[in-house]
Amino acid sequence: MIPHDKLFTPGPVEVSEKTLAAFARPMIGHRGEDFKNLYGAIHPRLQELFGTRQPVFLSTSSAWGVMEAAIRNLVRQRVLCCMCGAFSDNWLEVARRCGKEAEPLQVEWGQAIDHKAIDAQLASGKFDTVTLIHNETSTGVMNPLPEICCTLAKYPEVALIVDSVSSFSAVPIPMDAYQIDVLLTGSQKALALPPGFALFSVSEKAFSRAAQASDRGYYLDFLEFKKQQEGGMTPTTPSIGHIYALQSKLDDIFAEGLTNRYERHARTNALVHEWVRARGFEFFAAEGRRALTLTCVKNSRGIDVARLVRDLREKHHLVIDGGYGKLKGLTFRLSNMGDETEQTVAYLLRCLDDCLG
Amino acid sequence: MIPHDKLFTPGPVEVSEKTLAAFARPMIGHRGEDFKNLYGAIHPRLQELFGTRQPVFLSTSSAWGVMEAAIRNLVRQRVLCCMCGAFSDNWLEVARRCGKEAEPLQVEWGQAIDHKAIDAQLASGKFDTVTLIHNETSTGVMNPLPEICCTLAKYPEVALIVDSVSSFSAVPIPMDAYQIDVLLTGSQKALALPPGFALFSVSEKAFSRAAQASDRGYYLDFLEFKKQQEGGMTPTTPSIGHIYALQSKLDDIFAEGLTNRYERHARTNALVHEWVRARGFEFFAAEGRRALTLTCVKNSRGIDVARLVRDLREKHHLVIDGGYGKLKGLTFRLSNMGDETEQTVAYLLRCLDDCLG
Repeated sequence: MIPHDKLFTPGPVEVSEKTLAAFARPMIGHRGEDFKNLYGAIHPRLQELFGTRQPVFLSTSSAWGVMEAAIRNLVRQRVLCCMCGAFSDNWLEVARRCGKEAEPLQVEWGQAIDHKAIDAQLASGKFDTVTLIHNETSTGVMNPLPEICCTLAKYPEVALIVDSVSSFSAVPIPMDAYQIDVLLTGSQKALALPPGFALFSVSEKAFSRAAQASDRGYYLDFLEFKKQQEGGMTPTTPSIGHIYALQSKLDDIFAEGLTNRYERHARTNALVHEWVRARGFEFFAAEGRRALTLTCVKNSRGIDVARLVRDLREKHHLVIDGGYGKLKGLTFRLSNMGDETEQTVAYLLRCLDDCLG
Repeated sequence: MIPHDKLFTPGPVEVSEKTLAAFARPMIGHRGEDFKNLYGAIHPRLQELFGTRQPVFLSTSSAWGVMEAAIRNLVRQRVLCCMCGAFSDNWLEVARRCGKEAEPLQVEWGQAIDHKAIDAQLASGKFDTVTLIHNETSTGVMNPLPEICCTLAKYPEVALIVDSVSSFSAVPIPMDAYQIDVLLTGSQKALALPPGFALFSVSEKAFSRAAQASDRGYYLDFLEFKKQQEGGMTPTTPSIGHIYALQSKLDDIFAEGLTNRYERHARTNALVHEWVRARGFEFFAAEGRRALTLTCVKNSRGIDVARLVRDLREKHHLVIDGGYGKLKGLTFRLSNMGDETEQTVAYLLRCLDDCLG
């Protein structure tokens, strides 16, 4: 038996045995009462997590499927893409591949998006939609969502699409209060579910936009999701295993309590931050703009990151990330997403110390 | 403990405990060597199953995602949709929602697509693409793929998209020999994997088409799949659980042997057919055009189908389908897909007898 290498990567993150057991429950049909009961049972708790009274949809795709769908369903002509790292930067290209005019609002990697810069862009009247990634997972930046949403509120004709893949359920994101038009998340990061599934909710404004969009297709048509959800179903065959796993995870989340969950992430993140400072490393993300669910450590000591990653895996069966894309070797990333506790994070940090010698 | 209701529905079908155990293996990152090794290990066997030397792609979506993608990547202007039941009929609407001109080649439900009718349509020169569902799962019809593919061979400027969700791996479909341009299948029918995943392969002609398509997007862009597959990866976060389950299932399939697998399906299907005749029912699908993996039984005896379905579940914990869409109550469907044997199918038939009294 090969020992399992536990994931402290910022996605996919470690999935608990309890969640995996739910994931592997025997199948049920997706057009019958059993499925309607399953979806119906989890829906109110999903609405609470999303902070919305709108329907919450289950997408059998990874988050990029919904990100592309949000472009197709919402963008009329021109979208402003807030870009601060590998994931948010990619959205520009995706929007263009969907035939939309897209312009970048680019900041240096490690910096956060400035709401005043968004304001200046939107004042031009050129844009009908804005894309934003709340936590840019490649750089460890958390963008200031309240300030950005308040800025958007000045432009009621502009729709806001927010990806919360590595922040959802770990920090509060009240979708309705923030007037977010599409809030989406994937399964394999903050929710600590197996990869390959996404959740999203859509405002009334977004539904109106979709109704006027001629190229929204079928598989990720927001109006098709709305129609089917009203009958307790999904437009196409859903991944039942992921929905069982989600149900199990919602049990965990609400048993712990949302506030306790938020505080646990803040505490485990603080442990990582203390370690970074104590060991003489720096942070890649700007002060005051650091994510609460993962830490992008700047390799200011010039260590051999690839060797650290390898040693940690070989000696301790723990997996961390050695930097995303062009940040490879210049950073490494430690996740405190999902089920991690002060105990498990402290253990990771001790093992890192052991490997750093 | 609630007893499990075993699925004899024509999708999703029963998933074995062995497959579910593989499905729930601990997660690995999808950007590292572990993932490349996993994809690399299964790829040659996937090519053998597809009968192709082209790359085989893993899509984190249900089959409809790939069906829509095939439209976006291939159709230049006008597509002919071969329609003979609920699933194939829907493809017309999907094509139109993707902004394509689409025309129906409709036959009565229960009938198969006639290759001569395709020939007559293509002779008009109006169409650049044809969509076909090999097994129309709603009616139990298997369309004559060899005849249709030979007809298409006369029109090298026309691309052929084939859905094989309920026939793949149960009957031979040599993609390259048949000159199919996109061959796709879902996870939850003939392959007996959990729902929420799809596989497909793409001809060189289809890649050329995709290269000229301006609206193929990102999530299901065939050229993005091609580029990533060359590096042993997928364009976006894949459902690792489904790929582990697929690996386990490929072990099963090649341990049994492809010919043995085809013959097992033929024998279990024959058992169902004998039962239908012996019990005085009829077939919904036309003679000579019946699927080998499921049977759509015409309710020629006027029984209470809903009651039969309910009794079978309550008394024997077996689930069958009581007719799809407008065929509800007029038909019922029995699946012999996946891991079913003569023994398990005979048991289903005895239980049906018990409920029919």
